[in-house]
Amino acid sequence: MRSLVLIGHGSHLNPDSASSVYAYADMLREKRLFDEVVEGYWKEEPSLRQVLKTAEYTDVTVIPMFISEGYFTETVIPREMGLGHQGPVPPQGVARVIGGRTVRYTLPYGVHPRMGEVILARAREAYPEMNPADTALIVLGHGTTRNENSNKIVFQNAEQIRQSGQFAEVHALFLDEEPKVNGWQAQVKSKNVVLVPFFASEGWHTQETIPEDIGLTGEVTVFEDGPHGIQTVYYSKPVGTHPAVAEVILQLAEEAHGLSDQGGDVDRTHLDAWNALMALAEDTARIGEVIVRPAEGMFEIRHALDEGKANEGLKTVVTPEGVRDYARLDEGGEYRPVHTLRNLARGWRAVLSREDLPRAMHLLYPAVIEESYAHHHHALRCTPWAATARRQTGIYAKVQKATPQQVEHVASDVCGGCLKTRLWANDALNQTFFAGVPGGIPCAEACTLLVAEVREEVSGKRGAAAGHSHG
Amino acid sequence: MRSLVLIGHGSHLNPDSASSVYAYADMLREKRLFDEVVEGYWKEEPSLRQVLKTAEYTDVTVIPMFISEGYFTETVIPREMGLGHQGPVPPQGVARVIGGRTVRYTLPYGVHPRMGEVILARAREAYPEMNPADTALIVLGHGTTRNENSNKIVFQNAEQIRQSGQFAEVHALFLDEEPKVNGWQAQVKSKNVVLVPFFASEGWHTQETIPEDIGLTGEVTVFEDGPHGIQTVYYSKPVGTHPAVAEVILQLAEEAHGLSDQGGDVDRTHLDAWNALMALAEDTARIGEVIVRPAEGMFEIRHALDEGKANEGLKTVVTPEGVRDYARLDEGGEYRPVHTLRNLARGWRAVLSREDLPRAMHLLYPAVIEESYAHHHHALRCTPWAATARRQTGIYAKVQKATPQQVEHVASDVCGGCLKTRLWANDALNQTFFAGVPGGIPCAEACTLLVAEVREEVSGKRGAAAGHSHG
Repeated sequence: MRSLVLIGHGSHLNPDSASSVYAYADMLREKRLFDEVVEGYWKEEPSLRQVLKTAEYTDVTVIPMFISEGYFTETVIPREMGLGHQGPVPPQGVARVIGGRTVRYTLPYGVHPRMGEVILARAREAYPEMNPADTALIVLGHGTTRNENSNKIVFQNAEQIRQSGQFAEVHALFLDEEPKVNGWQAQVKSKNVVLVPFFASEGWHTQETIPEDIGLTGEVTVFEDGPHGIQTVYYSKPVGTHPAVAEVILQLAEEAHGLSDQGGDVDRTHLDAWNALMALAEDTARIGEVIVRPAEGMFEIRHALDEGKANEGLKTVVTPEGVRDYARLDEGGEYRPVHTLRNLARGWRAVLSREDLPRAMHLLYPAVIEESYAHHHHALRCTPWAATARRQTGIYAKVQKATPQQVEHVASDVCGGCLKTRLWANDALNQTFFAGVPGGIPCAEACTLLVAEVREEVSGKRGAAAGHSHG
Repeated sequence: MRSLVLIGHGSHLNPDSASSVYAYADMLREKRLFDEVVEGYWKEEPSLRQVLKTAEYTDVTVIPMFISEGYFTETVIPREMGLGHQGPVPPQGVARVIGGRTVRYTLPYGVHPRMGEVILARAREAYPEMNPADTALIVLGHGTTRNENSNKIVFQNAEQIRQSGQFAEVHALFLDEEPKVNGWQAQVKSKNVVLVPFFASEGWHTQETIPEDIGLTGEVTVFEDGPHGIQTVYYSKPVGTHPAVAEVILQLAEEAHGLSDQGGDVDRTHLDAWNALMALAEDTARIGEVIVRPAEGMFEIRHALDEGKANEGLKTVVTPEGVRDYARLDEGGEYRPVHTLRNLARGWRAVLSREDLPRAMHLLYPAVIEESYAHHHHALRCTPWAATARRQTGIYAKVQKATPQQVEHVASDVCGGCLKTRLWANDALNQTFFAGVPGGIPCAEACTLLVAEVREEVSGKRGAAAGHSHG
């Protein structure tokens, strides 16, 4: 029994930031090679601090969904997940026993040798009629930044494809360092050119800066005035959203798992929490802003403010993902980076099987069941603000300078709208929803949203815009 | 059976704006000369549009809690309350029958002749050892502004006191027009000077501009270099917060009532709504974010998220005013200008007698019981946005220019966090909490907060600061 955990960056601002991680998790779930696929994020929920608690099994493989090695894969993720490792991750990954779970942490998918296949797949998609004799391939990387070290892997992939002889020429070019892509016409001689961005996702670079740098007008652009005559550029989608990445992830996971194929067991603590939740739901559970109850052999989740409403007056969803969609935006259409903010949208109900209910609750309130159950049994470990602050690095290191008054000031705004009770600030929570108090949800540690807002406060950038809006 | 309604300006921003209206309402309640004292506001709740619905009796006397006549007393209040009157209010007031109620609308308290007594009371407080032979009185007004016409009444009060011979000299001076108060030393010859601000409340003028204009250093300031030698200025509190104003209000109300002393009856619609609420509370009522239920011969109100919480874990209040205090600020300490915003603080319970429960619910959710009951019986009249916009004058007239998209854009932000369903925007609400849906609360008309935010939008002043904050 094995859990696969995909780690994304996520965002406090952009509701679509996690969508490619969602997509791969869904693909891998359908393949059923892992008993469970879970997602965790740096800036969404479940957080890197929580995600291991949400895994059902004691054998956990963690894959950073990043295109290259760097600050996040070598520093932030291992630190936040408590892997006891910092710095470059060896090819076979890092294995640790954490809280009774065997956790295997791999390299990011982007550095796996099989990414060459993904580049080729993108190239074929962009130019299906390709003739190797007159076609050049450009593998386009960002160039090394403060946070990521991407150029080495772009060169490696280019070299590997060059040796395979499938193109007349193969170039590794970059947006922000030499050899730069905007000088491509000096180097690339072929009549046809396929340009494959070695980027994680569609975004500002793939949609704005790359086309502008080169002068692309669409998926196919004809250049008539170059030193090598008329050339046609075929611009592919980024590698990091190709379905074949799912295969790379699986292989990474297999390699990390190595020869130990016995797998793990069900994690007892996790099982107890969810059994308790199901027992609660058999009657009527009030959890945060929702009610969960049996409904004709299934279970129904709806907003407590919609209790008693005729079913016809509500939109009905029947999958955990449907619940996730309603949990992502508030009624004003604003993104909810923290799921326990007290602004869950009304107007919907979810009808779910016994098998689907746990995942739906997990997506609605990530890590809340596990942490509340632990607190209910006096077993939740809290991290005081000082420890959270001390751990921060990079742009967040400065939160260590925040005074207790600054932290409280920011928290009164950020946490004032949250269901959770801040145990990390010594607020008392005597009863959770497991003891019948719907709003009884513990907060074991300052979330990354609060850390980010405290950073703004310390930087003096947190003005009226960060305050409450209505008035 | 008579209801007294005190009308204040209120504020979307300042939680203390309504405090003097609260104080007078409390004083008048204690005097028990009216069967009920209700407050209504331009920028708080219940709004001017709603307040008559919240009156228990069919004989209603409405007193504008303003220091002078002007835009609010002559235009805004009569228009919003539907009095069918615009312009100066005659000395005997205006009487109308509205929705089965006889409504008497009076002049603002500040123009009542007995305000002279309040000025004298303030003068005596500021300088108890006063000797009429060597003491001058300055009645200090703001001067006429776009919104208020205050100088006439200041002159009248000064003249009346002058004729009474209680001071060596009496002057009417102003902050913003001639004769200006900063030239007082040229006119005032007495050794002792009492300065009484004819202002409604403590605020920026009484605490900042007046002391600065004159050079006051405290309640008593000695001036040594004036043309008339050494002079001591005694600075009083503003007239508009003196307890004697309660007497002025009562006399105004009596004069408006005139000879018809038969009084009114209980308003049937109002009674039905509250009887229905009490019937609901006898079992367990879920209304908006709270639960109301019987508790050992009393009734208890608590936040639904606190359901099941041990009483010891909650602060207990036992008065309607205690409930009001918890409803005023959210958990982050931010002011809640709209009581149905979905951010009612948790952590408290109210234990109330059968007699006190209605007023507590009124203060928690002003006009919600009456409007929801009306909607439950298909009897709630809605005002579409266009009609609300067309009615606006002054700085709000420009909201008529708002496009439907602009209104929706602002509403998605302002109303996205509100419990109410916007009937005025054609949103459907099939069941209220009277039919078992806790969040089923109708919104019959755009509130003044939305109007104010739409004005900002039309003015192009509504930027990031007005948006949601968390992220």
